[in-house]
Amino acid sequence: MGRVTDRRSVLRIDVGDGAPTRVSRMDSLAGEEPLEIRVGPAGGRRRPLAVTMRTPGDELELALGFLLTEGLISASSDVVTAQLCSGAEQPNTYNVVDVQLAAHVPEPRTDPARNFYTTSSCGVCGKASIEAVRTRSRFDVAADASTVEPAVLASLPDRLRAQQRGFDRTGGVHAAGLFTVAGELVCVREDVGRHNAVDKVVGWALREGRLPLAGHVLLVSGRASFELVQKASMAGIPVLAAVSAPSTLAAELAADAGLTLVGFLRGQSMNVYAGAHRVAVEPTRTG
Amino acid sequence: MGRVTDRRSVLRIDVGDGAPTRVSRMDSLAGEEPLEIRVGPAGGRRRPLAVTMRTPGDELELALGFLLTEGLISASSDVVTAQLCSGAEQPNTYNVVDVQLAAHVPEPRTDPARNFYTTSSCGVCGKASIEAVRTRSRFDVAADASTVEPAVLASLPDRLRAQQRGFDRTGGVHAAGLFTVAGELVCVREDVGRHNAVDKVVGWALREGRLPLAGHVLLVSGRASFELVQKASMAGIPVLAAVSAPSTLAAELAADAGLTLVGFLRGQSMNVYAGAHRVAVEPTRTG
Repeated sequence: MGRVTDRRSVLRIDVGDGAPTRVSRMDSLAGEEPLEIRVGPAGGRRRPLAVTMRTPGDELELALGFLLTEGLISASSDVVTAQLCSGAEQPNTYNVVDVQLAAHVPEPRTDPARNFYTTSSCGVCGKASIEAVRTRSRFDVAADASTVEPAVLASLPDRLRAQQRGFDRTGGVHAAGLFTVAGELVCVREDVGRHNAVDKVVGWALREGRLPLAGHVLLVSGRASFELVQKASMAGIPVLAAVSAPSTLAAELAADAGLTLVGFLRGQSMNVYAGAHRVAVEPTRTG
Repeated sequence: MGRVTDRRSVLRIDVGDGAPTRVSRMDSLAGEEPLEIRVGPAGGRRRPLAVTMRTPGDELELALGFLLTEGLISASSDVVTAQLCSGAEQPNTYNVVDVQLAAHVPEPRTDPARNFYTTSSCGVCGKASIEAVRTRSRFDVAADASTVEPAVLASLPDRLRAQQRGFDRTGGVHAAGLFTVAGELVCVREDVGRHNAVDKVVGWALREGRLPLAGHVLLVSGRASFELVQKASMAGIPVLAAVSAPSTLAAELAADAGLTLVGFLRGQSMNVYAGAHRVAVEPTRTG
């Protein structure tokens, strides 16, 4: 099995003002390995559904979180077993997760992305992508009456950062942190892919019986894309906060789903792109 | 068609030392829309191959770059036509690119990711992923005798940054910049997805008849994953430089493919993770 981080010899070059210097030294890198997710009915044949490049660790959470946020399962009762598969591989790479679905769960099409982003009514467009999330989402995020204090939001990035062990060593992994709206840290996961870090958190919550994640804030270390808002919505998380910028489609999906989207959460300030009613502060001026 | 950037009303909150202030204002966001890539033989039926969430613009370059870096085509002569497809959509979303392949090109399997990352010999693992790139790559990057001065490398991030119009407005797009090893800027593209920014650059080079990109440096604004090294290798680019960290598998693939991988290229310094022989500086000390 690959490791969360690994050490390699690197050449450090400093151009400086005079002659460049170079020093050979050891450096820690973020682990990256493929993970294949196979699904099928209990007792039946499991078929490969997706391969994702991810940082080793928390494979079952990653697989279950992926299945949930893609709308293929909606509760832990939809899964009979989920296990690392040894397959015919020698040595075992621990890079395959095998998921047996309960009898009542429709077997997924093996091309979920296409099905997700296109509908017959609209072809391929952002609006269709947003409608597809609405169709698949089991939880009504819009009805979540939670609010969160701006001061609590502002405190989260430092607290997430303090938990980022992989980042400390490598500077090369994203993190997703789950907090209550009161600011209590619930779960942190790291991965070279930010979508994987979120899936690991959601898969953890599924296994812990905590879905939907009403009254929670999900903080991501990078930017907020459509995909991350989708994942938060599918897990019933009412507030998604990002240290960096959101995209247009992320803001549109958040507004449509009734989810609060916070971006540029840095230092003492933040931008709220959707669902501002949950960020509890009285207006002081508008302009 | 979606736009490269779009303006939205946002709520700016500053927690400050006293009572929080909030101000409503307009903000520019990076555009994000799905793009479907359809491929098929000339005169035959085109089938959906992939959907990617991307920033609108340069759709044909993105599609062709994707096909090339995934190993489905290897030259512009492999493509009869590539065009934005109107389909049955009303209004036209300009989110579908239709590619007609030449008769000599094998029709791609519609599930390229799986085929790419797994082989029968090794199951699913990093080694198999690296071997798959070697099998598919048409260009011998290892044989590229180019060298690049550290001072030239150190100058590139500021020059890429100066061209990042989308980032200036939104703070939310990645960039990929193609330079000669002498430091001449050749092509810059931006996208919410860093892999898309690279595909747009490679697709541009394909259409310009510039492949393989021997003697060039590709600079990316973020981290260097396996996927980005794969794309550089498939386009025959001997030097990939990243402003941030590489992953283990990125470094391993670069070493295997004979590609120079530079990370943490910031200010006056950088780390060289593979192919250090191309970075032209005499050793001053080792330890």
